[in-house]
Amino acid sequence: MLKKFSVDEVYMGRLQKDDDLLKELTNIIKEKEIKTGIIKVIGAVQKAKIGFYNQDTNQYEYKKFDREMEVVSCIGNISLMDGEPFIHAHIVLADQDGSCYGGHLAEGTKVFASEFYIQPLKGNKLERKHDKATQLTLW
Amino acid sequence: MLKKFSVDEVYMGRLQKDDDLLKELTNIIKEKEIKTGIIKVIGAVQKAKIGFYNQDTNQYEYKKFDREMEVVSCIGNISLMDGEPFIHAHIVLADQDGSCYGGHLAEGTKVFASEFYIQPLKGNKLERKHDKATQLTLW
Amino acid sequence: MLKKFSVDEVYMGRLQKDDDLLKELTNIIKEKEIKTGIIKVIGAVQKAKIGFYNQDTNQYEYKKFDREMEVVSCIGNISLMDGEPFIHAHIVLADQDGSCYGGHLAEGTKVFASEFYIQPLKGNKLERKHDKATQLTLW
Repeated sequence: MLKKFSVDEVYMGRLQKDDDLLKELTNIIKEKEIKTGIIKVIGAVQKAKIGFYNQDTNQYEYKKFDREMEVVSCIGNISLMDGEPFIHAHIVLADQDGSCYGGHLAEGTKVFASEFYIQPLKGNKLERKHDKATQLTLW
Repeated sequence: MLKKFSVDEVYMGRLQKDDDLLKELTNIIKEKEIKTGIIKVIGAVQKAKIGFYNQDTNQYEYKKFDREMEVVSCIGNISLMDGEPFIHAHIVLADQDGSCYGGHLAEGTKVFASEFYIQPLKGNKLERKHDKATQLTLW
Repeated sequence: MLKKFSVDEVYMGRLQKDDDLLKELTNIIKEKEIKTGIIKVIGAVQKAKIGFYNQDTNQYEYKKFDREMEVVSCIGNISLMDGEPFIHAHIVLADQDGSCYGGHLAEGTKVFASEFYIQPLKGNKLERKHDKATQLTLW
């Protein structure tokens, strides 16, 4: 599946300390009515929750990190899920030793500082629906 | 070396389960005649093959992961190699514990689910050629 | 905080072997007078220096890697610090085993090969200033 979009503007922004990373980004895209796009974040978190999709059980398994970590990468996309703007992002975190841990960004990831980039995409749309092959909700 | 390009449109797409990640993305850029650009992927794979360029022997060393992993980051670029569109991408994978493994994306990486972004770049071109200092094929 | 920008062009470029990754990218954005933007790099380094911001002491702690590694991800942004273009980037490095280490990109990271992408952002500006809540210099 491949769709073409036009691009002409982007947003740069910053979250506040103690924000929930995923919830707050979702609030922002809903407020700005960004239905399709891509997103990128760097920063640091006070704690994190990430998911791993078990391809055998078709369930997300979640892992919590109750310590401060750098957000060394967080890239994702915005599309429609049940008619609402929805963020699907994957995150890579680094601890004090530099060791990296990554997965599907989940609610429960608490911002220390976060600089984000959102590129809205126009002229087409992406809608998530159930995919039989993976039991995931995909475009 | 620095070249300027214009941007006006992007593609968002999804690969099918069991696709070879690198081969299928390469098929897509060739079909769409995208000769220059950037690419980004998140998703999950059933197995992976990544390379590490040994700077002493000037050879890629490959490593296979025969297990399911999240694609927590995969960023790369599109340029011309021997006149053909060519993808150079680096990938970061996360296993069930969240531990991350990364390297040069190689053929042999089997998709479970993959959402990708391609930004074609226009108005200039990048052609790979042999570089003496690194023994790599660079722009 | 959220600001809107326009995009129309990007730069793709390559650094030379032995360049300092952060210093050289900073030279380039200053020479091109890019005051706001985003940046992405993949490649390999001969050695690296990364930072971890200790949220308790409010100090960066630096870690050096005196060995060759792949740059599997390096994403960041460009904004103004004391009136000068400034790069804030986070990097993920992979060693010969594929193990990943990440943090805040610091000077002292020596390029082996580096392909970069710079997207200048226009029509608005981002200026870093002291933030009380984190003791960081944020937009």
